[in-house]
Amino acid sequence: MLKLYHYHSSTCSKKVRITLAEKGMDWDSHHVNLFAEPDKVPEHLQPWYVKLNPVGVVPTLDHDGRIIIESNIIIEYLDELQPDPSLRPDDLWERAQMRRWLDKAEHVIHRNINIISYSKRHASRWKQSSREKQIELINKQPNIVRRAEYMRRFTDGISEEEKVRALEVLGSVMDEMEATLKKQDWLAGGSYSLADIGVTPFIQRLEVNELDELVDWDARPATGAWWERIKARPSYEPAMFFPDPTGDGLR
Amino acid sequence: MLKLYHYHSSTCSKKVRITLAEKGMDWDSHHVNLFAEPDKVPEHLQPWYVKLNPVGVVPTLDHDGRIIIESNIIIEYLDELQPDPSLRPDDLWERAQMRRWLDKAEHVIHRNINIISYSKRHASRWKQSSREKQIELINKQPNIVRRAEYMRRFTDGISEEEKVRALEVLGSVMDEMEATLKKQDWLAGGSYSLADIGVTPFIQRLEVNELDELVDWDARPATGAWWERIKARPSYEPAMFFPDPTGDGLR
Repeated sequence: MLKLYHYHSSTCSKKVRITLAEKGMDWDSHHVNLFAEPDKVPEHLQPWYVKLNPVGVVPTLDHDGRIIIESNIIIEYLDELQPDPSLRPDDLWERAQMRRWLDKAEHVIHRNINIISYSKRHASRWKQSSREKQIELINKQPNIVRRAEYMRRFTDGISEEEKVRALEVLGSVMDEMEATLKKQDWLAGGSYSLADIGVTPFIQRLEVNELDELVDWDARPATGAWWERIKARPSYEPAMFFPDPTGDGLR
Repeated sequence: MLKLYHYHSSTCSKKVRITLAEKGMDWDSHHVNLFAEPDKVPEHLQPWYVKLNPVGVVPTLDHDGRIIIESNIIIEYLDELQPDPSLRPDDLWERAQMRRWLDKAEHVIHRNINIISYSKRHASRWKQSSREKQIELINKQPNIVRRAEYMRRFTDGISEEEKVRALEVLGSVMDEMEATLKKQDWLAGGSYSLADIGVTPFIQRLEVNELDELVDWDARPATGAWWERIKARPSYEPAMFFPDPTGDGLR
């Protein structure tokens, strides 16, 4: 049995839900509430969850009691577990390109969108709780890399220079997507693959955050056409917009 | 034909050379000199190389004219290209753990060792050239993420706080290795795999940089025993210590 611990609007949860939908796999849902009441500990930082996922993030996959974390690793696991329909190119060079896009989606796109999203999506929520409470929550973060980064953002804030650089980095990745999609229909070659899944939630996030220059499809028409093909897939709507049990209105 | 563009003491080049040695694959060597004379452009930033490797780093693999970059992706490519002897666990859950270690080696270990290595290994070299020359070289870095990071290090330096945090992060990864290797002989399970290869060059780098607390095997005996097993493999010496054509003395 597959059980997914996830959050409705988390980009990495979306990657896994798209993969499950594309493969028509059954799964049990455990929705993890990342944003508890101001005086409560959110679910992903509670001890039982951190035991499953020592980084304290969603998603986590439980496959018959074996735990897998990190969305890129989960989706490649799912593709190996149920190879039909395959979401990895047979050609090994194309498969290498797929893995480059997965890595880039996580370590370049996600990282830089987070710098911008931090203030856009979550600043108002943070204001609801006291400074002490916020520091207490940051210190509950079990992973030292994340804890240090969150603390830095909290104490120093995100500088304008950082935001400008993040936008510049994202622009360069969008240019690379455009160059790739001018040559071929999908990011890793002639067929839809995990590479496309890895990037999809971030493009939607750019749209939601109204980063208009980055999603100006007149400027990057091949990517715009790819985006239409992505949104037309039956997996898109149900996997991307899992019903929100929290009412937080995030998409 | 396989042709590897690499540097004798680069950690990521070492990963690929170990994989090639473990598999007994033939390859042609193109040694890329990362440190040219003060008034010359080093080879990895010359236009012909950046055309092959747009990030401007080593290694790059050329397989019959198809170019693959990023060491983790190269070594999984090599394992799929020649599956015997296999360097990936058959068990899919163990394979997922292997990919987590590869990701951690690159994005946590490598990143944090670089913060420390920057001053330890390369500071004296930088002093040989003028400030203008150094800025010119940084601006030749084709990848925007690296360029921004190098410029930040050059202008702000690396703070003591950053170094302390990097050491703390590396310590936490070493603890995780110890916990894993207490349960099993190799990082991804019962057999040697790409996970072990992904981490090997960094452990040797910790030793070379004399980060004694991190390589105190009395404190982490299971990792110490693993390290002895690694060094006893026939692949270790020739792949790790490729003859140095530059005479720079780095190991």
